[in-house]
Amino acid sequence: MNKTFKEIEKHIERAAALQAATILFEWDSETLEPPAAGELTAGLIGSLSAQYQELMTDPGLQALVEQCEKEKGLTETEEGILKELKRQIKELKSIPPKEYRAYKELIAGAVRIWERARAENDFSLFAPTLQEIVDYKKRFASYRAEKGQKLYDVMLDEFEKDFHMAQLDPFFETLKQELVPIIKKLVKENRKPDTSFLTAGYSLESQEQAAKFIAEYVGMDFNKGVLGVSAHPFTTNLHNKDVRITTHYTDSIDTSVFSVIHETGHAIYELGVRDDLTLTPLGSGASMGMHESQSRFYENVIGRCEAFWEPVYERVAAIFGPPLTDISLDSFIKAVNRVEPGLIRTNADELTYALHVQIRYELEKMMIEEDVPVTELPEIWNRKYEEYLGVRPERDGEGILQDIHWSQGLFGYFPSYALGSAFAAQIYLHMKKTMDVEQLLREGKLSVIQEYLRENIHQFGRLKTARQIIKDVTGEDFKPEYYVEYLREKYEK
Amino acid sequence: MNKTFKEIEKHIERAAALQAATILFEWDSETLEPPAAGELTAGLIGSLSAQYQELMTDPGLQALVEQCEKEKGLTETEEGILKELKRQIKELKSIPPKEYRAYKELIAGAVRIWERARAENDFSLFAPTLQEIVDYKKRFASYRAEKGQKLYDVMLDEFEKDFHMAQLDPFFETLKQELVPIIKKLVKENRKPDTSFLTAGYSLESQEQAAKFIAEYVGMDFNKGVLGVSAHPFTTNLHNKDVRITTHYTDSIDTSVFSVIHETGHAIYELGVRDDLTLTPLGSGASMGMHESQSRFYENVIGRCEAFWEPVYERVAAIFGPPLTDISLDSFIKAVNRVEPGLIRTNADELTYALHVQIRYELEKMMIEEDVPVTELPEIWNRKYEEYLGVRPERDGEGILQDIHWSQGLFGYFPSYALGSAFAAQIYLHMKKTMDVEQLLREGKLSVIQEYLRENIHQFGRLKTARQIIKDVTGEDFKPEYYVEYLREKYEK
Repeated sequence: MNKTFKEIEKHIERAAALQAATILFEWDSETLEPPAAGELTAGLIGSLSAQYQELMTDPGLQALVEQCEKEKGLTETEEGILKELKRQIKELKSIPPKEYRAYKELIAGAVRIWERARAENDFSLFAPTLQEIVDYKKRFASYRAEKGQKLYDVMLDEFEKDFHMAQLDPFFETLKQELVPIIKKLVKENRKPDTSFLTAGYSLESQEQAAKFIAEYVGMDFNKGVLGVSAHPFTTNLHNKDVRITTHYTDSIDTSVFSVIHETGHAIYELGVRDDLTLTPLGSGASMGMHESQSRFYENVIGRCEAFWEPVYERVAAIFGPPLTDISLDSFIKAVNRVEPGLIRTNADELTYALHVQIRYELEKMMIEEDVPVTELPEIWNRKYEEYLGVRPERDGEGILQDIHWSQGLFGYFPSYALGSAFAAQIYLHMKKTMDVEQLLREGKLSVIQEYLRENIHQFGRLKTARQIIKDVTGEDFKPEYYVEYLREKYEK
Repeated sequence: MNKTFKEIEKHIERAAALQAATILFEWDSETLEPPAAGELTAGLIGSLSAQYQELMTDPGLQALVEQCEKEKGLTETEEGILKELKRQIKELKSIPPKEYRAYKELIAGAVRIWERARAENDFSLFAPTLQEIVDYKKRFASYRAEKGQKLYDVMLDEFEKDFHMAQLDPFFETLKQELVPIIKKLVKENRKPDTSFLTAGYSLESQEQAAKFIAEYVGMDFNKGVLGVSAHPFTTNLHNKDVRITTHYTDSIDTSVFSVIHETGHAIYELGVRDDLTLTPLGSGASMGMHESQSRFYENVIGRCEAFWEPVYERVAAIFGPPLTDISLDSFIKAVNRVEPGLIRTNADELTYALHVQIRYELEKMMIEEDVPVTELPEIWNRKYEEYLGVRPERDGEGILQDIHWSQGLFGYFPSYALGSAFAAQIYLHMKKTMDVEQLLREGKLSVIQEYLRENIHQFGRLKTARQIIKDVTGEDFKPEYYVEYLREKYEK
C-alpha cells in the first residue's frame, strides 16, 4: 500500500472514532438520555465536534493529502476515499471553529426543544431555536458557496450532488401536474376502504413484537443491529456491524410496521457497505436520495404489495390479534394503499407523498433564499396544505412541528425523499426485467432481492454517486418519468 | 481566575469529552450493542483512548501544569484538580502508547468473552484473555511502581490510597477471626427462615416495576438517571446530571430490589458531586472504598432494616404479587437478613460477605505477586470456598466466573467492598449520634439521610481522600473495630 495513504488512514481512523462517538451520543440522546443531562451532554458533543474539526483541518493531514495526490499506485477505492476526504476537509475548513462548535452545541439541544414544542403544539417554543439554526446554516453555506451560487443550492448539494433548484423546481412541478389529477380523480371516486383496524388499541407489546418480526423478515440482521424507540423514527449508522433503527409506537400499524420497514431499508443499505469502506469517508450510503430510494423501495414498492404479505400476513395478524385477525389480506392491502390527502408526511400514501415533500421544499427555499422569518412559517405551511392537499392542520404538532429534520439542521434533505422514490421506481422497473420480483416475494425470498441491491448499490457506499449508480444499474440516466409510470400503473388500475 | 489554570481547563474539558465518549461506549456495549459490533467498536474505543492518552501527556499541558504550580491565587478546588491531574498525567505517561491502546482494545472485547464463558460455565474460554489482562496489568504497575513497591500495592493504590497489603492483610485476618465464630454459631443454631418467596416466579414486568419504584424511593432521580439491564449490575457516571444504573432480572428479590438499592447508593453519590467538580479529574467518588461504603450503606444498613420497609413494604409486595403479598414484614426482614454461607458474593449476607471478598483478595495476590497462572484459579477458588465458607461451586459460573471485574481489568478493586462496608459502619454509628436514623426511615424521610451524606461526603467528589472524609465526618481515623461492632450488634441480638 502507498505509504502516504497509510499515514492518511491513521488520521481517518481517529476522525472516525470521534464521529462515531458523536453519533453514539446523538443516538443516546434521542433514545435514552435522562432529561436533565441535555446541557452538559451538549457541551461534550460540542467538544468532540471541535476535536473532530481540528483533526480534519490539521495542516499535517492536508500536506499528506496533497502529497498523496501527486503519487501513483492508489487503488480506485483509495482514490475515492482521498477525494471525499478532501471535500470534507474543505467544508470543515470553511467554518470558523468557534461557530462550528457553537452550532454543534445548539443542535445537540435543539431536538429536545422541538420535542417539547411538538408535545405542547406550540411552534413559538421552537421558533427562536429554529431561527438560530437557519441563520447558522445560511452563514455556513455562504462560507463555501462558489461565486454566484445560491445558498439553498449549497445545502442541497450536501444531500444530492446533481440535483439543485434548477433540476428540482421542474421535477416537483411535473410531479404535481401529473399526480394531482390522479389524486383528484381517486378522491372524487370516493374509494374509501375501511382503515379502522389499522389503529385499534393494539397493545404496546404486540406492536413491539410485530415490529421486531417484520424487520427481521424484511432482512434486518439483529446480530448487527438494534431496534429502539424515539420521538421520530430514524436510522443511525456506527459502522457496518452496528446499525440501529427506531420507531415510535402510536397504536398504528403505520408506525409499528411500515415505518419499521422504511428504517429497515436504510439499515440494510448501511449493513451492506463493504468492509473496506466502513469507518472511512465513503462508509455510508451514496446520497440521501439513494438512501431514501432504498427505504421507500422496501416500505412502499415491496412493503405495500400483496405478494409481500402472502407468506406472512396471517402470522403478523396473529401477533396484533383482533380486529386484524378478522381482516382479509385483500382488505388489509386496500387499507395500506388507500389514497387520502392527509396532514402527516410519514403516514402519506405514495401518490400524495411528493406533495408533502414539495411543501417543505418550498418553505425551505423561502427561509433560505427569501429570508422569510420562521415565525411566519406556520401560516404558510397551513395555507399550502390547504392548497395542495385540501387539508388544514389545526395544531402545530400535526403541521409545521411534525418533522424532526429542521431541529437537526437538515435543510435540503427533504427533496431526497421524493428523489428517492423516483430512484426507487426506476430501479424497480429495471429490476423487474431481470427477475420476477412478485414471485420472489410470494416465496418469501427477500434475500434474493437484498442480494441484488447489495451487489448493485449497497456495497459501494459513497464510492459512486447516486446518478452513477442509477446509470450502472439501469443503463440509463435518471428519468423521473419512471416514477410517474410506476405510480400510474399502481394507482390507475 | 488564574490565567494559566484557565488554559489547563481547556485541556481538561477535551479530555473529559473523550473519557465520557469511552464511558458511553462501555455503557452501550454492556446494555445494548449488537453482538457482531464488538470488534469494530473495540477499535473505536482503542482510538478514543489513544487520543485521550495523547491529550493528557501533551508536553504543552505539562508545561502549563508546571507553570501553574509556581503561581499563586489558586482556590482549594483548583489546587485539588491540579494535583489529581498531575497524578493522572504521570500514570498515563508511564505506559507506552502502543501498549495502552492494545490494552484498551483487549478490555473492550473482554466482557463479551467473559459473558460467554459464564453462560457456558467454562472458565477455559476466558482463561487466555484473563491471562493477557493480568500480564498487562502487571506490566503497567511495574512502569509506575516506586523502588521496592509491590505490584499489587500499586494496583490497590488505584482504588484506595491508604490501604495496601500491609493494612489489608491484618484487616481481613481480624474480620475472619471475629466473624467466623459468629457465622458458625448461627449456622449451628440452624436459624433458617423461609426464603422461598424471594424467588417465586415473579414476572419480569413486576420485577422491573419494583426495581424502578424502590430506586426512586431510595432517592434515585430519574430526571438525571437511567435504569438499564446488563449481565452484571453496575453504575456508570457520565457527569452529575447523567448517572446510570443497571441490574439483571433473575426472578430474585435479591437482584430486582437489593442489587438495585446497592447501585442506587452509587448513583446518589455521583449525582451529589458538586457542579464545579463534575467533568474534572475530581468529578467522581473519593475512592472505590468510599463508593462501596455508600452503596453498601444503602443496600444493607438501611435497605435490610425493618424501619426502612415499614412505610413501603405493602406497596412493594403488591407490585410483586403473591406469594409476597402473603408474607409478613417480619418474615420478609428475617429472610433478607438470613445468614447462610453461599456461593455468590452479590447475594451474600453481611456476615459472610467479607469472606467472599477475602478469597478474591487472596487470589489476586497469587496472580500478581506469586505469578500463579490463571488456569489454576478455579481449583484454588473452589478449595478456598470450601475452607472459608463450607460450600463448593459445582460450575464455573457460580464460582470463579461470577464477577465481571477481572474482565474489565479491575485488580485491587475487591478489597474496596469490604473496606466500604467498614467505612459505612463507622459512618453509620456516628450518624446515629446526630439523628434518629430508624425514626427517619419509619417516616419515609430518606431525603434527610441523603442530604447528610451529600453534605458530608458526596459533594466533595475526589477533593478529599476517603480517610480524610472519615476523619471529618466522625472526628476519628478509620477504625475497623466499628465494623465488627456493627455486625455483632446486628447479628448477635
